Amino acid sequence: MNTHPPERPRILLHDPTLRDGHHAVGHQLDADQLRAYATAANAAGVPVVEVGHGNGLGASSLQIGRARLDDATMLTTVREALTSARMGVFMAPGWGTSGDLAAAVHRGADVIRIAAHCTEADVTERHLGVVRDLGAEAQGVLLMSHMTGPGELAEQCALMAKFGAQAVGIMDSAGHYLPSEVTGRVHAIAEAVDVPVIFHGHNNLGLAVANSLAAVDAGAVVIDATARGFGAGAGNTQLEVLVAVLERRGIETGIGLREVLSAADVAADRLMKAPPSIDSIAVASGLAGVFSGFKRPVLESARAEGVDPVDLFLALGERQVVAGQEDLIGDTARQLKAATR
Amino acid sequence: MNTHPPERPRILLHDPTLRDGHHAVGHQLDADQLRAYATAANAAGVPVVEVGHGNGLGASSLQIGRARLDDATMLTTVREALTSARMGVFMAPGWGTSGDLAAAVHRGADVIRIAAHCTEADVTERHLGVVRDLGAEAQGVLLMSHMTGPGELAEQCALMAKFGAQAVGIMDSAGHYLPSEVTGRVHAIAEAVDVPVIFHGHNNLGLAVANSLAAVDAGAVVIDATARGFGAGAGNTQLEVLVAVLERRGIETGIGLREVLSAADVAADRLMKAPPSIDSIAVASGLAGVFSGFKRPVLESARAEGVDPVDLFLALGERQVVAGQEDLIGDTARQLKAATR
Repeated sequence: MNTHPPERPRILLHDPTLRDGHHAVGHQLDADQLRAYATAANAAGVPVVEVGHGNGLGASSLQIGRARLDDATMLTTVREALTSARMGVFMAPGWGTSGDLAAAVHRGADVIRIAAHCTEADVTERHLGVVRDLGAEAQGVLLMSHMTGPGELAEQCALMAKFGAQAVGIMDSAGHYLPSEVTGRVHAIAEAVDVPVIFHGHNNLGLAVANSLAAVDAGAVVIDATARGFGAGAGNTQLEVLVAVLERRGIETGIGLREVLSAADVAADRLMKAPPSIDSIAVASGLAGVFSGFKRPVLESARAEGVDPVDLFLALGERQVVAGQEDLIGDTARQLKAATR
Repeated sequence: MNTHPPERPRILLHDPTLRDGHHAVGHQLDADQLRAYATAANAAGVPVVEVGHGNGLGASSLQIGRARLDDATMLTTVREALTSARMGVFMAPGWGTSGDLAAAVHRGADVIRIAAHCTEADVTERHLGVVRDLGAEAQGVLLMSHMTGPGELAEQCALMAKFGAQAVGIMDSAGHYLPSEVTGRVHAIAEAVDVPVIFHGHNNLGLAVANSLAAVDAGAVVIDATARGFGAGAGNTQLEVLVAVLERRGIETGIGLREVLSAADVAADRLMKAPPSIDSIAVASGLAGVFSGFKRPVLESARAEGVDPVDLFLALGERQVVAGQEDLIGDTARQLKAATR
C-alpha cells in the first residue's frame, strides 16, 4: 500500500529539462544556459532540477555523443544556481559507475535516479545501495515500461524499493502509452510499494499531459516534466502546462504559475532552437513503441536502403528493439528492402 | 438517445486544417498551398476537408483580417483537388449570410457548419434551414462551450437538431477543457440528440488529443483534427497523431496512417513557418478560458499599459470576455494597471 494518502493533494514535479532536453541539442548546453534555466526554475519553486548528459552520469562518449561540459562542470554550475530546489542526476548502470555517483554527491546532487530496462531491476541493486550509503535520496526508474504489464512492473518496482529506492516508478521512453495503460500500471505499482511512485512521460502520441494526469489519479506522487517539453523525440510532459492543469484540478505543486511561465520562457529563449513538436517520425516511433532516440540512425538506415522510415520504425517495434541494439536498425532496413523487391 | 451505437467503432475525422490553420498565418494561404494540402488529405482518405477564412464564410474584412483569397477562389481550388473527400465550410451568423451559403453550395461545399456562442443556438435556426434547403449537410456547433455546463449544452444542441442540423456539437475554443469535463458534456449531448455529436479541441493545456479520446468514449462520432495541429493559438487536435491513437484503440477512421503522415508532412512543409506550440500566452489563455484569437490585442494592450499579459488574460477570463468584446481588453488592461499602482 502506498503510504501517502494526500489529505490535501500534493504532487512533486521533478524537472529534467537540463538532462532530457540535452537529447534535443546533442548534449551541447553550455554553463550560461544551465545557469539561466536553473536560476529561473529555482525561483519558480520547482522542487528538483535534474542536470546532466541526456543518458546520464558517465554517458558522454564518442558512441552516444559527447556533452559540451563534463559532469563535474554541469553539476557545479547548477548547484550554485539553486537556493531552494534540490539537484537531481540520472544514471544508467553500464554508462555510469559508483565513482560517478560519489563524485555527483560530492558536488551536491541530492536526488539520484538509477535506471534500468523495465524487466531488469536487479541491475540497480548495487548502485541504489551506493546512493543510500552516500546519504543522497535514491530513486529507481524503469525504462521502456510499455514493454511489460502492470504485474511485472509492480514486482520490479518492489524489488527496487527493497534495494533501498526511496521512490520508484516508470518511464514512457517511447511515448507509447494511452492514459488507461498508465492508470493500470501506476495503480499496480502504488499497491505494491510503500514509497512514492514516479511517472515520466513523452509526448509522441500527444498524451504526455493526459498520461501524467492519469498517473496522478492512479497514485503517482512524483511527476517528471520539462519546460516547453524540452526533451528527447517529441519531448516530455510540458512543465508549465502541467502546473496550469494541476491548478485547474485543485492539486498543489508549490510552483508559482507566473514564475514557471517565466522559467519556460527562459528555456524557450535560451536552450532550444524551437520547442519540440510531434513530427511524423515521432508519431511512428511512439506508435511502434521504439525509443525516439533512434531517430537519427533510423533516418540514416532508411535513406541508405531506400525504405520508408515510418515502415522501419514499425518493423523495429515488431522486433521489440531496445537501446543498445542499434546494430539491428541496419539489419531490419535491409530486410525491409529485400521484402519489397 | 444517440442512434449510432457502433458495432465496430468508427469515427469520422473532420479536417479544418485549411480553415482553423488560417488563424495561424493571418488568413494568407494561397491557391497552391490549398491545392497541395487538399490533394494530400484526399489521398489519405480524410473524409471532410474544411476550407475558408479562419472565421468562416464572409469573415474576410479589415476588422478581422483580410484573407489572401476570396471565398469563391478558396472553395473552387479545394473542390478541384478532392475526388473522394467531401468539402466543408464554416459560418458564424453575423459574418456570413444566406447568400454566402448559397454561393458555397454552388461551388461544391458538401458539409456546412453553422456556429454560435454556446448559449445562443437560436441564432442558427435560419441558416441551418437555408443549408437544408440548399441540399447540403447542415451541422451546428457551439463556440466557447466551456462557459456553460452539460445541461445547457445538451439543450442548445437539441435546439440545433430541431432546426435541422444533421450533426451537432461543441468547440473548446479556448483550449480550456480537462478530459473529465468533455466526458460530462458530450455524454449529456449524446443523450439529448438523435444525430452524430461533434467535438473540436484546442491544445492550450496540452490535452487536445486526450479530450478528443474522452469525447469518443462519451459518444462523439465526428472529431475535428488538423495536420500538425495547424490552428488558432496552441493549435487543434493533431490529425495524424489522433489517427495513430485511434489505431492503438482499435477504432476505425478509414484514414491510412502512412498517407496521413505524408499529408501532415505536406502541411508542415507548405502551410506553416513552424508547427503550433504551447507558449506561455497559450497556457494563460487556456487556463483563463479566453479565446486564443485574442493573443495579439492582449499583447498590444499589455505592452501599452505596462502590465503582464498573463495577468491580463487571467483578468479577462474572470470577466468572461468573449469574441466581439475586444474593446474590453484595453479597459481591463487599464484597470489592472490602476490596481497595481
